[in-house]
This record gives sequence, structure tokens and C-alpha cells, in this order.
Amino acid sequence: MAKQQIGVIGLAVMGKNLALNIESKGFSVSVFNRSPEKTHDLLGEAKGKNLTGAFTIEEFVESLETPRKILIMVQAGKATDSTIEQLLPFLDQGDIIIDGGNAYFPDTVRRSKDLEDQGFRFIGTGVSGGEEGALKGPSIMPGGQESAYKLVEPILTAISAKVDGEPCCTYIGPDGAGHYVKMVHNGIEYGDMQLICEAYQLLKDVLGLDAKELHDIFEEWNKGELDSYLIEITTDIFAQYDKETGKPMVDVILDSAGQKGTGKWTSQSSLDLGVPLSMITESVFSRFLSAMKDERVEASKVLNGPTNEPFQGDKAEFIENVRKALFASKIVSYAQGFAQLRVASDEYGWNLKYGELAKIWRGGCIIRSRFLQNITDAYANNAELKNLLLDPFFNDIMGSYQTAWRKVIASAVTLGVPVPGFASALAYYDSYRTARLPANLLQAQRDYFGAHTFKRVDKEGVFHHNWLAE
Amino acid sequence: MAKQQIGVIGLAVMGKNLALNIESKGFSVSVFNRSPEKTHDLLGEAKGKNLTGAFTIEEFVESLETPRKILIMVQAGKATDSTIEQLLPFLDQGDIIIDGGNAYFPDTVRRSKDLEDQGFRFIGTGVSGGEEGALKGPSIMPGGQESAYKLVEPILTAISAKVDGEPCCTYIGPDGAGHYVKMVHNGIEYGDMQLICEAYQLLKDVLGLDAKELHDIFEEWNKGELDSYLIEITTDIFAQYDKETGKPMVDVILDSAGQKGTGKWTSQSSLDLGVPLSMITESVFSRFLSAMKDERVEASKVLNGPTNEPFQGDKAEFIENVRKALFASKIVSYAQGFAQLRVASDEYGWNLKYGELAKIWRGGCIIRSRFLQNITDAYANNAELKNLLLDPFFNDIMGSYQTAWRKVIASAVTLGVPVPGFASALAYYDSYRTARLPANLLQAQRDYFGAHTFKRVDKEGVFHHNWLAE
Repeated sequence: MAKQQIGVIGLAVMGKNLALNIESKGFSVSVFNRSPEKTHDLLGEAKGKNLTGAFTIEEFVESLETPRKILIMVQAGKATDSTIEQLLPFLDQGDIIIDGGNAYFPDTVRRSKDLEDQGFRFIGTGVSGGEEGALKGPSIMPGGQESAYKLVEPILTAISAKVDGEPCCTYIGPDGAGHYVKMVHNGIEYGDMQLICEAYQLLKDVLGLDAKELHDIFEEWNKGELDSYLIEITTDIFAQYDKETGKPMVDVILDSAGQKGTGKWTSQSSLDLGVPLSMITESVFSRFLSAMKDERVEASKVLNGPTNEPFQGDKAEFIENVRKALFASKIVSYAQGFAQLRVASDEYGWNLKYGELAKIWRGGCIIRSRFLQNITDAYANNAELKNLLLDPFFNDIMGSYQTAWRKVIASAVTLGVPVPGFASALAYYDSYRTARLPANLLQAQRDYFGAHTFKRVDKEGVFHHNWLAE
Repeated sequence: MAKQQIGVIGLAVMGKNLALNIESKGFSVSVFNRSPEKTHDLLGEAKGKNLTGAFTIEEFVESLETPRKILIMVQAGKATDSTIEQLLPFLDQGDIIIDGGNAYFPDTVRRSKDLEDQGFRFIGTGVSGGEEGALKGPSIMPGGQESAYKLVEPILTAISAKVDGEPCCTYIGPDGAGHYVKMVHNGIEYGDMQLICEAYQLLKDVLGLDAKELHDIFEEWNKGELDSYLIEITTDIFAQYDKETGKPMVDVILDSAGQKGTGKWTSQSSLDLGVPLSMITESVFSRFLSAMKDERVEASKVLNGPTNEPFQGDKAEFIENVRKALFASKIVSYAQGFAQLRVASDEYGWNLKYGELAKIWRGGCIIRSRFLQNITDAYANNAELKNLLLDPFFNDIMGSYQTAWRKVIASAVTLGVPVPGFASALAYYDSYRTARLPANLLQAQRDYFGAHTFKRVDKEGVFHHNWLAE
């Protein structure tokens, strides 16, 4: 029997769909799952396809051509380690393990080193696009040895999404680079979703718009510079109705958000790296706050807000201002995310290509959007760009949208509508463009109570003032 | 020779000052330092005092009465582990090691378990108050076995600060509780400092006030409900002048803030625990932003803000509004910090007494203030209080200050003065009191692209909608 070109372990929906995707591109696939039922199910579903099932690890490994290419799609964490451990006794030197789960990047760094030390090759790859992306073409962010990537490149690029004929897959960098980039992608996804939610709440609570009107606005927005998958599905969501109650779906869903940890990791990494990732972090905190539903309902009966009159201004102008606030805040969110990638790349020696990242996010993944092309262009103009806000294209937008953005936040603050994302993005913009922040006072305080010393504006050196002497 | 009652290892300024403080309260002290010079220096300085020096670990341990009480004041991290390792061969069962450094609380949990397993006792204690506090009376937050605490209680309470005759020291809880509480204390300190800085920048940049005028305003503020150590030293800072240039000290100090990690840890823990600690986290990010001085100076030349006219309104009213905004934001910051302590206490089984924590922070430490008595009172009224904002005293203040608070933020946003702390505190307040947040849309999005499911507003259960069917 001919050996298969690649193996997939773990046949939950992501693994199963990737296996079908790979097979559909003309590669032969061997599949294995811990419990045999899923393997049987897939084999039944894939009758006539170039897809074989194995029921022991040994049989699975033996079914693959060498150097073997094994894609692991199990739950991130212990299951990944345990799967690798079960594989190793049967592998040969130079075989390639590919972890396509949402691994925590320090785990990928560790696994990469461990496996390399033992003579195996390892790729940790981000895969974004959900179930549908996995089946029809995800965005793929592989990190690891470049030599190993070259061997799997034909398969990964074949199954990835395509934009303008280009695959949404490129080599990201050594060891944990792929999973790190995927993590930041997810953090940015948190930010995008939060900003859309704030726009929604403003339009709903200030203007009193219903789902139908919201649908029309988002449909319109999706024709312009906000054009993106998330705006598109938001438009669609507003058009869907609950069969049971006849109400808009969005109105019957509880406002209590879940999360799976990648947004949190992105924020924790920003804190380790000293990067001000305020907008995405507010998105994570907003999910936490949303989940405190019972406590909020109690608090809403006790805590006072402003007493508001019905909206008196120009509705169309307010809607357009919200659109501009959303776009300006989104630019800040991406600026923060890419600034973090830059610091991480330096810290971990990954040599990330920022423009390439934006490019492979244009298709397949959740944050895909027209806007990512502008980011690719910005890095094409200046590969050393320190912050996206400094790029002329984005700088122009910020300059012309800032008045609208400020108006929306000032209104929200006055009216008592929470806009943590919009407001933190603006605070970042205003802090970043402020040559003299008040941290001189903070350094004076630290020197006062803890002799932490300070620098001076007028000469080099480290100084301490004897505050208590006077 | 009589044995000494307590030993101190590590004679940098904190260790040295604590040793002198302990001796001054009538306890005999043995001291040891890795390099003998510091020991010689202290012995020279402490002639005639009940303080003896040891020059080997063995000699040091032998000099102490049993069960031995050994306070370690070395750099947090590896130095702590290495010091403990050097001590162990000479200790007897039941001896007590006290780590008074700024340890990361999971390290304290680990050390506590390791030492307890070996028959030793361990206390991880927060010590706040800087150099001066260490010498004259710090706030002390000891965690560990309560039996061990009882044996060192007379010494710790004797050396601690006193407020209304009560010591600023109490048993916090098992293992890492003391260091965790100290960590959150430091996070709150970050928040307090950031909020003062934002008030300073508003008064300086919007009203154009100079150091003399700022001094007078803060002096006035310190007479009211903002009365605190940090407002007091800020008042003093504005009154001090650089001898070299004759300028106010605050004007010659570079606006680039340092940090030592405890604020960052507090934020990272909030992310692990699912607690929205947005205000303190913005303070950490603001320090990062301040440290990007060169980049900010560059950005200030490129990025545009609003073009502002000189301030036309009522100056006194603006100043009073800033005061109210500062106080309201401060209440939110403490509400977030205490909410985190509550979740951590449940998570780690610490049974924290929130009112007691506020009580021991009233003196000795950096965040000491009149206001902490109100927090103690709030928990005395309701030990199960879920959030400080729900306490009638604080709720009243929020209700009456919110208009001023909103005005200040709206002005800052309009004028382009960054107020990340004020704005995130308000966003939290408005989110917390909002019964219906927009997370229903977010859950719809997650269910749309990832089949993450959602709950409904009208019945129990977990649901998935087939979004693509329509």
C-alpha cells in the first residue's frame, strides 16, 4: 500500500475539516483519533476520498511517507504534550510534527527546543478562520525551522485561503513565532469585536435604533473602508430572527461574553514586554464585565447615571461620527498590536515581517478586511515603521477623523454610555502624540518615597533629590 | 552569651532599617549580610544597641533563640531561594523564616509548601512604606501559618506604624496571601499616582498653572477627603526648586516613569482571575508610554491634535471638577482592587478580611489616607459587600460627583489631553451599572464564526443558531 503524504491526529471539527481540505487539494491523508468513533465517522463521510484511517498510533505513523508530516489538532496544553509523547517512539529523525492548535507560545518554544534536541522537527502554526475556514481555506501562520516549513509549504499554501491569487500562508519565524502571531491576531479580533459592540450600543442606546435600522447601517459601512468579515457577519446577524419568539436574534441572546484565553495571553504578554496594549486589554476586561451579568443587574438598580433627554441632534451626523470613531479606534488597536509584534520580534529574535502578516490576514481569518492591505502597504513603504500611526495614510485618517471621534466619546461620557475601547484608544493616541506627559511628577513621587532616582530634561545621568531636607 | 530574639539577613536599606526599627522596640537582633562590609557598617552605626553581627550563616543561626525567627530582606526571586537554601542545613524543625521582600505570590505559595513539607515554618510578608517606613513604622502584611504568625506577632506589631493606637499589621491569611495583598496594594499605588498625574496635567495644560499654583491647590485638596500621603508629598514636591537652575524640581525631571513589576503582576493576575482591573492596568500602560519618550517626541511632531483656544471657562469650577474627577476615579480604582482581592481570596482559599486590609493601610504605607477608613467602615457595615461602589457612602459620592467627572473627561477628550485613568474608571462605572451591555452581539459573532454557543435572555440553557442557513 502506498504511504500517505500527511497525517492528521485529532478529528474534532477543526482537525476533521483540515483533513478534508488537505485531501481536496490532491494530497493523500491518514487520520487518527484517540477514540475510534470519530475516525469511523470521518471515513464514512469521506468514502471515495484519498483518506485512510488508522486505529493505533503505530499504524498511523507507519502509514506515512518519510520524512513524516503529522498535523496535531488536539486541545492545546497537556493533550498536545501527551500526543507528542505517544508519537515519538515511532518516529524517525527528521520527521515533522505540526501543532495546529491554539498553543500558548512559550509551550511552543519549549516543544520546539525539546524536539529539535531529539532530532525531530517541529512547526507550531496558527490556524485562523474557524470551522468554515479550516474546510475552505484558513489563514495559516507557521513558525519553526524554516527547513521543515519548506517541506510542508506545498500542502499549507494549497489549503490556505487565497486573496488576489496569493496564499494566506507564509513562514512566520522560528519556534514560537507562529503561535505568537496567531495570539496577537486573536487579541486584535477581541479589539475589533469590542469596537463594533460599542458602536452598536451607542446607536441602540443613544439613537434608539432597532435591528432593522442597525442592519442597514452596517450594510452601508461594509461598503466602505470598514469592509471586513466581522462587519459583514454583524450586518447578517442583525437580519436574523428567532423562530420561537419572532424577535431579532440579537435581542434574545444574553449579554454575557465568553473567552478562551488568547486575548488574555496577548494582554499578559504586553505587560511582560512593556508595550501599552490598552485597547485590546479593555476588550478583555469588557468581556469579564459582561460576564458579571447578575452583579450588573443589581448595580443598575443602585448606581446612578445622568438623566438623559431623547437625542436632539442630527442622527445621520451622529451615525457617521460613530463610524469614524470606530475606524479611528480600530487603527489604534492595530497600531498597538503591531507595536507589540515589533517588540516581541526583537525580544525573541523572530525577525517578523509585519507587512507579510497583514497580507496573510487578508483572507481566511476572522479579522480579514480591506484595511489590512493598507497595513501591508505601510510596511512596504517603510519596513522599519515604529508605529502604524506614523504612516502617512493612517496619520491622514486620524487627523481628519479625530474631531468626530472626540465628539462621540464626549457624548458617550456625558450620556453615560460605556465606551471603554473608544476611550482607551483615544487616550493612547493623545498620550502617544504628547511630548511631555506628567510622568515627571510620578518620578518625583517615586524618588521622594523610595529614592528610585530620576533622569533630567537638561542633562544625562541619574539623579536623586533630597526631598526631606527642605 | 544570650541568644538574640530575631535575625535579619540582607542589610540593604530596607533590611538595615527594619533591623534598627526592631531593636528600637526593645528586641535583640542578630544581623547577617552576604558581603561583610554592610554588616560592619551597620555595627559601627549601631554601637551601644542590642544588635550583634554574624559573618557566617552558621554563626548567624546559632546566635538566635529557638524557635528561630529569621527575616530575609534580599532581592526577590533567586536570591530569596538561595538564601533559604543556605539557611536550611542549620535550622531546627519549627524555626520560622520570614520573607519580607516583594516576592511574586506564586513563589511564596511554593516556598510555603516546600518549607512546611520539611517541617519549617514560613511567613511571606508585605512591607510597605519605603525606607522611612521601614525605620519608623511600615504597614505589614504577613501571610503564612497562623501559628507562626502568633510567634512573631509581638515583634511585627511593635515595629509597624500605628493609627489611633492600632498597629498597621494583622494576619492576612495562608501562604501567598500576604504577598498577594502587598502586590494589590502596589497596584492601587500605581493607580493613585496615575490619577494624580492626570489631574496635574489637566491643571497644567488646560489652565496653564505653574508649580506654585499647583502647590496651593494640592495643599488645599489635602485638607479634604483626598487627604493622603501621596497628595501630601505631591504638595511638597511642587514647592521644591532645583538648586542648579532655580526651576521647580518637577520641571527639570524627565517624564519617563520606571516600574519594578508589582503593578504589572497585579494586572496579570486580574487577567488570570477574570477581574476587570482596567484603571490600574491603564496606569501600568501609562508608565510604559511615558518611557517611550523619544518616540513620543517624534510622534508629537507628526500627529495632530485639536487646535485649542485659551481656556475661557471658570477656573475655580474647573479645578473643583478635576478634584471630584480624581476622587471618583480613585473610588473606582479601589473598588476594582478590592473586587480582585475578593476573587483571589475565593480562588486561593485565603479568607481575606477586606476591612482589616484597609485598616492596616491607613498608616505606614504609600497609599495611606483618610479615605481608607471609609473602606473599613463599608466592610464593617457589610462584610459580604461585592463591590465598594455598592456601599451607600461611596454610592452617594459617585452620584453627586459624576456630573463633574463626566465634564472633566469630556473636556480632556475634546482638548486632546490624555486621561487614560479617569476615562477607564468612568467606563468601568458606566459598564458596571449597565444591565444590558452589547455582549449579546459579541456572543452572536462568536456563535456565527466559531459555533461557540450562547445563552438566552428568556430561558435557561445553551444554544446555537444556524446563522448560515438563512
